[in-house]
Amino acid sequence: MKIDLTWLKSELKQQVTEHRYIHSLGVAETGKQLAKGYDADPEKVELAGILHDFCKFWSKEELGNEIRRHAVLANDLLDYNVELWHGPVASVIVQERFQIDDEDVIMAIRYHTSGREQMSTIEKIVCLADYIEPSRQFPGVEEIRKWAEKDLDQALLAAIDGTIQFLIKKKMKIYPLTVRARNDLIDQIEKKRKKEDENGIIG
Amino acid sequence: MKIDLTWLKSELKQQVTEHRYIHSLGVAETGKQLAKGYDADPEKVELAGILHDFCKFWSKEELGNEIRRHAVLANDLLDYNVELWHGPVASVIVQERFQIDDEDVIMAIRYHTSGREQMSTIEKIVCLADYIEPSRQFPGVEEIRKWAEKDLDQALLAAIDGTIQFLIKKKMKIYPLTVRARNDLIDQIEKKRKKEDENGIIG
Repeated sequence: MKIDLTWLKSELKQQVTEHRYIHSLGVAETGKQLAKGYDADPEKVELAGILHDFCKFWSKEELGNEIRRHAVLANDLLDYNVELWHGPVASVIVQERFQIDDEDVIMAIRYHTSGREQMSTIEKIVCLADYIEPSRQFPGVEEIRKWAEKDLDQALLAAIDGTIQFLIKKKMKIYPLTVRARNDLIDQIEKKRKKEDENGIIG
Repeated sequence: MKIDLTWLKSELKQQVTEHRYIHSLGVAETGKQLAKGYDADPEKVELAGILHDFCKFWSKEELGNEIRRHAVLANDLLDYNVELWHGPVASVIVQERFQIDDEDVIMAIRYHTSGREQMSTIEKIVCLADYIEPSRQFPGVEEIRKWAEKDLDQALLAAIDGTIQFLIKKKMKIYPLTVRARNDLIDQIEKKRKKEDENGIIG
């Protein structure tokens, strides 16, 4: 990828608050480190990290219009909290505005809030980095940071569980795709565990 | 309905443990009381209550076969915990074995564990009674019993939230339909609240 990150960062700075700008660079940096540990492309993760919140401060109306305008984005988003809208919208805007055409980067931006079934490693990393980058502070974040060092799926599961528990506490709706993402992670963890057990017996 | 409940109870007794039999009559009785408060047919609720766990002790293989045999039952159940299977199976078995053809009763049996979107009042009552009948004891049940006296939707929401939190604690998968049921309840509660607010302003 030959894209100028300095230029992208200056574009981002015009779209978001100082706090959100620092968060975005935090996601890029934390994501890059995770990518090295989990055998993913650090440059793609960095790019997705920088841009994942590009549309975070767009109005509900603007975001809704973009979701309706792009058939590729799930229409059911409109029935759920606006907090879920900025990722999918950013995933199409970065294509139009910066000619980013890397599918891994686009998907990582699109699903960074909701997750989805069959997430790629890059998607998982960006989603997790969004939870645990250094400026994030909430009860339980340290435990997820520790998980992140040893097991990407377990760390992401813990992060999603935290989100669902937050939504339950607030009596807010839960996006079904997030539950599907979580169910799929549990299946993947179980599959991996079984494989390790089998190898343990053979070895 | 002219169905002989004494006969049905004796049929149930042959299918389930003593504990589960008492639970079933508890659901029927608690449900009947709730039905009177929420303007639903107490006889239908009683019938669904007696039969909702009719297949609770069938083997995983038997339940799986019935789910595959009946196109009306959701196939995705097979990807989720067996605990979710006995309600849907009972909903078809009671038709075949006892010629029960009341759609309200059948649906209440089918969705008593998972819930679904757009539940009828009878479905909500059976689902809730299943949580709170007198033999049920778990942390928080008293609070849900109190809600049950004043607001069916809030009580059912609290019950579903308890289930989801249990599943998260156990790192078990969450059936997406349950989340859809919960989201729909939240929408209904919000709609009702708005309507009451409007009436408050007018009145």
